[in-house]
Amino acid sequence: MSGERALIEALRGLAGHPAARNLDDDAAVLEFGGEALVLTHDMVVEGVHFLAGQDPADVAWKLVATNMSDLAAKGAEPVGVLLGYMLGRDDERFLAGLKEALDHFGAPLLGGDTVGRTAIQALGLTAFGRATFRPVPSRSGAKPGDGVWLTGAVGGAMVGLEALRSGSGDSLAYRRPNARLADGIALAPMVTAMMDVSDGLLLDAFRMAKASKVAITIDSGTVPLACPELRRDEALRWGDDYELLFTLPADALPAVAATRIGAAQTAGSSPLIIDGIAISSPDGLGFEHR
Amino acid sequence: MSGERALIEALRGLAGHPAARNLDDDAAVLEFGGEALVLTHDMVVEGVHFLAGQDPADVAWKLVATNMSDLAAKGAEPVGVLLGYMLGRDDERFLAGLKEALDHFGAPLLGGDTVGRTAIQALGLTAFGRATFRPVPSRSGAKPGDGVWLTGAVGGAMVGLEALRSGSGDSLAYRRPNARLADGIALAPMVTAMMDVSDGLLLDAFRMAKASKVAITIDSGTVPLACPELRRDEALRWGDDYELLFTLPADALPAVAATRIGAAQTAGSSPLIIDGIAISSPDGLGFEHR
Repeated sequence: MSGERALIEALRGLAGHPAARNLDDDAAVLEFGGEALVLTHDMVVEGVHFLAGQDPADVAWKLVATNMSDLAAKGAEPVGVLLGYMLGRDDERFLAGLKEALDHFGAPLLGGDTVGRTAIQALGLTAFGRATFRPVPSRSGAKPGDGVWLTGAVGGAMVGLEALRSGSGDSLAYRRPNARLADGIALAPMVTAMMDVSDGLLLDAFRMAKASKVAITIDSGTVPLACPELRRDEALRWGDDYELLFTLPADALPAVAATRIGAAQTAGSSPLIIDGIAISSPDGLGFEHR
Repeated sequence: MSGERALIEALRGLAGHPAARNLDDDAAVLEFGGEALVLTHDMVVEGVHFLAGQDPADVAWKLVATNMSDLAAKGAEPVGVLLGYMLGRDDERFLAGLKEALDHFGAPLLGGDTVGRTAIQALGLTAFGRATFRPVPSRSGAKPGDGVWLTGAVGGAMVGLEALRSGSGDSLAYRRPNARLADGIALAPMVTAMMDVSDGLLLDAFRMAKASKVAITIDSGTVPLACPELRRDEALRWGDDYELLFTLPADALPAVAATRIGAAQTAGSSPLIIDGIAISSPDGLGFEHR
């Protein structure tokens, strides 16, 4: 949405603080007490980020997981979360899912706020982490010649959402995404750039290329899929998979299971080159903020 | 609301972490890198916490100020904020007020999230601070014999809201509350307990007494008012004034302008005694979470 994009730009301008390098993108990194504190906040709204009839336990899980994925991309270990909770249809179920997720990711609930219900439920979660390696990875460090790598596969959330909507098939990948915290910590000392893939692999690769002032070439056939092959094009544009996209020096190999899907090269007129086709606009590449 | 109160209790149970000592009450305090990080999150909803037609610049100011007041009660200096912003009627005005408030309180915007508009605007703000004195003040440290003190006056927000609703009179105290950051920092080394008055002086004093396991006596006639004398009873029960309520050893005097309004004594059957009348239930004392 252009209104939202404009606002984000205005907020970025307002921010002006070095830690605010990536409002609405990556987590912020703040020096505190001689360590690097990693901060991220996600807001989700019923009917936009989750289905109105969805199990609140799954909503809670995903809210935690998406924030944990932001920490993972910084090689941070979770320190805790603050919850902004608007009462909903089934608060008990939300609590159950929240507890499951916080236990799973090792992120204690430190506090928060609760407000009464309205017609549309909105929720916020702030997550804090401690960076395990400095400099803290960012999306802006890719260098020409670097290999471009991806943990896991994409497309799982896409078919998971379809399964959830149709009521048949496995919806787990959409409902209960993982966050690659251990991978992020293992990768932090070796990557030149890293981010999580939340809005679609191609769109996020485009953003990494822009931020790093390089071009990124992707060989789309090499990207592992968690969906049928005939959905490949869609899967590369779908979000919600929360894998890590990262770059390594040309001949380096990652410390975790990952697939080399492309390379970075000197910036040209287009930030992204998919199977030899130059892409100069992010339109249609993935989930733009809506 | 009983549903919300029950949820808060359940969240507190879920939290279990020592830093989560006061979910939905004070800010959380977390040891990080050899310093004490103070964390607070407030969520506000159109029609509940702010008027539907209110100037978004004032909404932004108040959202920042209430979080700053939570930091003030911990003797913390602001480090920054994360914003969860749902697009609203006039995002430019919101931004203008946000900038004014962040500049005023010296709290940089570090990041956040934005989401599209819905029928009812919900907003979240997370504030971070650095404790300037340890042990970090809490509401639970009042001792029998302590004096009970209040910065400033109460009732200003009450008449301010009335002025705003009627369209005549001075609404500034409601629209643009201050946060006593400097006072909180000056008081932190001397107080036995401290909290901000957000839900009504009497209700918050009741809570401090309960948390500290003491009884608090208030001499209501000593409480400074920012409203006509005939509104005294209401003003003591009204919220949104964001003054600091604190306790000091019996013969100590505060380092800032403040008024002695009562004393702490050994806990009896009632946490609060107003002008000699024992109060054993918080009902009717102030703004309970609704």
